[in-house]
Amino acid sequence: MSASKKRPTLDDLDLSLGKRTRLHRILYEYGNKNGTALLLPIDQGLEHGPVDFFANPDSIDPDYQLRLAVEGGYSGIVFHIGLAQKYMKKYAGKVPLILKLNGKTAIPSDKYAFSPQTASVEDAVRLGADAVGYTLYVGSPAQGEDFIQFMQVREEAERYGMPVIVWSYPRGEAIEAKGGRDSLYAVDYAARVANELGADLVKLNMPEFDEKKMEQCPKPYNTLKLSPEEAVRKVVESAGKTMVLISGGSKISDEDLIEKARICMEAGVAGLIFGRNMWQRKHDDALQITARIKEMMMDYSA
Amino acid sequence: MSASKKRPTLDDLDLSLGKRTRLHRILYEYGNKNGTALLLPIDQGLEHGPVDFFANPDSIDPDYQLRLAVEGGYSGIVFHIGLAQKYMKKYAGKVPLILKLNGKTAIPSDKYAFSPQTASVEDAVRLGADAVGYTLYVGSPAQGEDFIQFMQVREEAERYGMPVIVWSYPRGEAIEAKGGRDSLYAVDYAARVANELGADLVKLNMPEFDEKKMEQCPKPYNTLKLSPEEAVRKVVESAGKTMVLISGGSKISDEDLIEKARICMEAGVAGLIFGRNMWQRKHDDALQITARIKEMMMDYSA
Amino acid sequence: MSASKKRPTLDDLDLSLGKRTRLHRILYEYGNKNGTALLLPIDQGLEHGPVDFFANPDSIDPDYQLRLAVEGGYSGIVFHIGLAQKYMKKYAGKVPLILKLNGKTAIPSDKYAFSPQTASVEDAVRLGADAVGYTLYVGSPAQGEDFIQFMQVREEAERYGMPVIVWSYPRGEAIEAKGGRDSLYAVDYAARVANELGADLVKLNMPEFDEKKMEQCPKPYNTLKLSPEEAVRKVVESAGKTMVLISGGSKISDEDLIEKARICMEAGVAGLIFGRNMWQRKHDDALQITARIKEMMMDYSA
Amino acid sequence: MSASKKRPTLDDLDLSLGKRTRLHRILYEYGNKNGTALLLPIDQGLEHGPVDFFANPDSIDPDYQLRLAVEGGYSGIVFHIGLAQKYMKKYAGKVPLILKLNGKTAIPSDKYAFSPQTASVEDAVRLGADAVGYTLYVGSPAQGEDFIQFMQVREEAERYGMPVIVWSYPRGEAIEAKGGRDSLYAVDYAARVANELGADLVKLNMPEFDEKKMEQCPKPYNTLKLSPEEAVRKVVESAGKTMVLISGGSKISDEDLIEKARICMEAGVAGLIFGRNMWQRKHDDALQITARIKEMMMDYSA
Amino acid sequence: MSASKKRPTLDDLDLSLGKRTRLHRILYEYGNKNGTALLLPIDQGLEHGPVDFFANPDSIDPDYQLRLAVEGGYSGIVFHIGLAQKYMKKYAGKVPLILKLNGKTAIPSDKYAFSPQTASVEDAVRLGADAVGYTLYVGSPAQGEDFIQFMQVREEAERYGMPVIVWSYPRGEAIEAKGGRDSLYAVDYAARVANELGADLVKLNMPEFDEKKMEQCPKPYNTLKLSPEEAVRKVVESAGKTMVLISGGSKISDEDLIEKARICMEAGVAGLIFGRNMWQRKHDDALQITARIKEMMMDYSA
Repeated sequence: MSASKKRPTLDDLDLSLGKRTRLHRILYEYGNKNGTALLLPIDQGLEHGPVDFFANPDSIDPDYQLRLAVEGGYSGIVFHIGLAQKYMKKYAGKVPLILKLNGKTAIPSDKYAFSPQTASVEDAVRLGADAVGYTLYVGSPAQGEDFIQFMQVREEAERYGMPVIVWSYPRGEAIEAKGGRDSLYAVDYAARVANELGADLVKLNMPEFDEKKMEQCPKPYNTLKLSPEEAVRKVVESAGKTMVLISGGSKISDEDLIEKARICMEAGVAGLIFGRNMWQRKHDDALQITARIKEMMMDYSA
Repeated sequence: MSASKKRPTLDDLDLSLGKRTRLHRILYEYGNKNGTALLLPIDQGLEHGPVDFFANPDSIDPDYQLRLAVEGGYSGIVFHIGLAQKYMKKYAGKVPLILKLNGKTAIPSDKYAFSPQTASVEDAVRLGADAVGYTLYVGSPAQGEDFIQFMQVREEAERYGMPVIVWSYPRGEAIEAKGGRDSLYAVDYAARVANELGADLVKLNMPEFDEKKMEQCPKPYNTLKLSPEEAVRKVVESAGKTMVLISGGSKISDEDLIEKARICMEAGVAGLIFGRNMWQRKHDDALQITARIKEMMMDYSA
Repeated sequence: MSASKKRPTLDDLDLSLGKRTRLHRILYEYGNKNGTALLLPIDQGLEHGPVDFFANPDSIDPDYQLRLAVEGGYSGIVFHIGLAQKYMKKYAGKVPLILKLNGKTAIPSDKYAFSPQTASVEDAVRLGADAVGYTLYVGSPAQGEDFIQFMQVREEAERYGMPVIVWSYPRGEAIEAKGGRDSLYAVDYAARVANELGADLVKLNMPEFDEKKMEQCPKPYNTLKLSPEEAVRKVVESAGKTMVLISGGSKISDEDLIEKARICMEAGVAGLIFGRNMWQRKHDDALQITARIKEMMMDYSA
Repeated sequence: MSASKKRPTLDDLDLSLGKRTRLHRILYEYGNKNGTALLLPIDQGLEHGPVDFFANPDSIDPDYQLRLAVEGGYSGIVFHIGLAQKYMKKYAGKVPLILKLNGKTAIPSDKYAFSPQTASVEDAVRLGADAVGYTLYVGSPAQGEDFIQFMQVREEAERYGMPVIVWSYPRGEAIEAKGGRDSLYAVDYAARVANELGADLVKLNMPEFDEKKMEQCPKPYNTLKLSPEEAVRKVVESAGKTMVLISGGSKISDEDLIEKARICMEAGVAGLIFGRNMWQRKHDDALQITARIKEMMMDYSA
Repeated sequence: MSASKKRPTLDDLDLSLGKRTRLHRILYEYGNKNGTALLLPIDQGLEHGPVDFFANPDSIDPDYQLRLAVEGGYSGIVFHIGLAQKYMKKYAGKVPLILKLNGKTAIPSDKYAFSPQTASVEDAVRLGADAVGYTLYVGSPAQGEDFIQFMQVREEAERYGMPVIVWSYPRGEAIEAKGGRDSLYAVDYAARVANELGADLVKLNMPEFDEKKMEQCPKPYNTLKLSPEEAVRKVVESAGKTMVLISGGSKISDEDLIEKARICMEAGVAGLIFGRNMWQRKHDDALQITARIKEMMMDYSA
């Protein structure tokens, strides 16, 4: 890995005291405490509906994820305002809260995808959160509204010293016509946008290589076939001084998950944000695979 | 019922002093005073028009519902700002006011349903209300505007310690294409959304099982046929730490109504919000069935 | 008339000191001074254009209407901000000003009718007005924008103790498909909406019974054929504690106008708001019929 | 001319001290100093593009118009914020500035014409302007947005005592379908709208009589054929206590221009606002015709 | 060149102390220090995506451009908020920062192009920037939203004494139908709009002469064929007292670039803003051509 491709650490970033203090908690005081982050997101009840909880009925109770986050030693848990306010008090301080600030249901069309605010940075401060999450639908026809909403969140976060994690998701009719939301073109662009607009961390999906869809991608992406690790390395580079978190997506097998996690870490990401792959497993299974992933992540201290 | 499925009580919730004080009035100082709520809504004149008053002409005068609420010993009455300001003074303190903060007429198309604000939380404070009501059209293409409007109401309510009851109603062209607004899929999703976005209580309709429409629901809802009680239990679980109120819908017979009410209580709801089923009955009939329902609800103290 | 159907008086309403003081002027200090109101509106130059002045060329000068209002002893005159500021000073205090706060031209399509603000309640306070007027297009697809704009006007009016008269007008493509803007269904709904949203007075048109259009009305309005007086009585009841003003519409004969006025008063309205029927008549004719109507209204003191 | 048709003077208007002071400068301290106004507008570079400067290449430099305005002794010059800030300092106080507050390019379609704000009244105060200009697209489908924007400008102008000149221009697809933007129907309506909404002065185009288009006008305008002077007299009457300025339109011959100017003054307008007709002429020619027009305007002191 | 066509200098402009101080740094304290500006923009990662970095993989790291800017002695570097905050600290004060305040991705359609804000002028002040950049899509159907957003930026910049550079870009379906975004008609109009709306500097593309597209341009542009230098001279004249920067566009050969630069300087522009043409070259090549261009620019001191 060239110097410029190494993942950024807190020392590489020009963060305010508040942001650095809070990120330090996520990276060095919780989880592996080695500069990596393993986050447990539980916003799928809003984004997908209760349908995601059928695979493991216990998971419908947010307390399930909280116990997993605390017992598994996660670096943070991601909640919308309602769940944070109603479920976290007894776990206060045991696991950092990342308050998700916007979201939407999966019911209406995604052609003009826009994720409206559901909470403010001030809400996050009030609840003792250590970061906020914001979904940016890169390339959506609604990007005008989205960028402006994000700017306001970014400025409010700057004022309060609150780190901002951007869920940088290509979405909308235009990206579907240019190779789809999971193409390297789309994810690579999304990584750069997060870096340009001022994210502190960026959550990305692993690029996928669908030969048919690739043809629709702009040059040179239409012929650029990379290995999974090369692809992640590419988007990490585009994210620059924005730490990258890779999401898990829908549930896969233990070995596949660990393999995926290792590829990402190897490629220079700062952490993993695995939701369904964790809490759709039974509590003990989830703890077990959590432990294995954390152990693997110990190889990537920074 | 597993522990996690028991309905939440005030002790389970992490409420501010103001919210707890006001909800305590609704749950323990008025109505059955046993932790359940029986609410009388009278916003149908706006939502449906005066057409709903034809069945019982006396009901067109909001004083009719106020007398019913006071004499029947309801836990609260739901009004829009105009009715609250003009009719409640002589009943002040005799029955809690829930101020409905948004609403719309039934005249234009519901494809892009949105319920605009008609009053503010500050109006509710000024009028001595003990809660506010907000209609959220879950899944509407206008959800962007709706979520943001709700966030502002939620934050204003937080500031004033005012409990928020969300009318969580699936609505709009997209939900119609996915099995309709009354499917378990739709109601279950709506319950979770209210929990995620920060409702204190959520008003839901009982799910309906229309075989033809079910086919259009996403998996596994398209094949999930539950009994009425199982269905309510399901949505109560999705609502989590958000107390559930079930609405009555259009007028049904005494026995059907009591049966419906018992099923709901049995399934773990915190209360009932019956409008047309009450005030479309003659005063004495309404008082009588109110008494029977309240008696039944005494079995569900918490 | 049953007690509940009698028209409301100031004592029946729960008004702030400022609102009561100002309405008292309109109802008891000017005009008939007997609790009824006869208002002279002159906003047609904006709503219809100068075309309405062709019938009586003198009427193009707002001074014409002001002289009529003062010499005829009207309870108030209705102006938009421009006319109020430019023409009223020499009549200051001689006739109450009702400042119309929104309006539009008749040029673009009415499918999505919306009446934007042209002045604020603060403007009305500054000009010494005794009430403000607001046009609400009930049932328009733009009702979201309209309700929110009205809420802001209502709250500002509450703050300043300024009475609000709502021009409650069914309008837009949806109401045209359901029997039209003048059906009993439409006017009755509009009366209730004004009551629910917090109008102090509501201006309505007399319902019309067009057999062909009635078929398109929702049940039971599609078969509900009432006499003119019954129809007005019906909408007065729907308006509840909101005093009703009936508008005159386009110019009709002296006898028809007086007959219409008497029917309305008999049915429980609090007043009349006759514009074109007055100022499209020559000054002396207008004074004469004004006197006859006022004399008739003396039978309806309250 | 009947008394009511004489053009209004400062004494007829009920202006605040600030507005009267500033208008007095335009009407009595600069230009003819006889109560008439001759204004030089130079916003065509924005509204039409540099294309308007081809006829007289010198005119592309705003200094050209400034020299013309000062040497010709105009009552005021009309600029957008950029030109005012960059070009006026050396002419400060030598000719009043009218700051144009909104504008648009001619590139996109005019179907839904809307003229967005480019500067605020506060900008005008800061630059020492004596009036502001606002383009109102009467009858545009965007009138909702436009009226509200204008209300805000009007209220800000009221606060600062700044006179408001409304460019009252019929525009948009609906007026095109009703006889076009230059019909008497359209201009007459626009004159009244400016009066109703609170303009201090209104800039209008001379009505045109195109027989084919007239058929599309609403009654009785579809058959109303007036002489140019009668037509101007008609719109002056509709403008009421709003002083009328007539614009020059595209360049015409010296004699035609003077004839047009005299017709307008004879019909009761308060002034002329001639742009292209002036600065598309060579400097000396423009000074010469300016002098002739000013001499003619001396016959219309007030 | 006539006096009026010479490019404006700081002395010709009526700038506030803050604006003059900051522009003086860009024009006389950095770069050639002779009143010209050579700027290095690096917002293409947002506007085009990482695709622009394939030609020179090192360029994906913003540090690459920063080193080039400092070592090459540029007058300023253009960044969005994210890159400025994350990469500039170690180069603080070594090269002026121009903070780009709005931007968009290239993914959705450009028919209704609008560039939403990504940062505020206050952000620029906080970061020690010496100017802000704003993209104005001249002629877009979204110009209403754009002009208003720009007005707010301009007023905020005025308050803080921050120079505003407008990227004045013809864009949207209407300009495509009138000869395209690069026609002389389009660029000339864009130059004037920036001058009228209050830009301090304007960034323009060199007009192109495509015979087929020219036919669609409005008269007389449809037949106006100018040499490159004449064309730039024309737009410089339209920009008036707004200093012009010409952008480089996609990468061309050394000789072509220098020739283009000289033509522009000769025609009266104040500076060049060359991005891809610089950082798509290898570091040493970029330094070399930078030196050659700067040397040429020394002929144009002012």
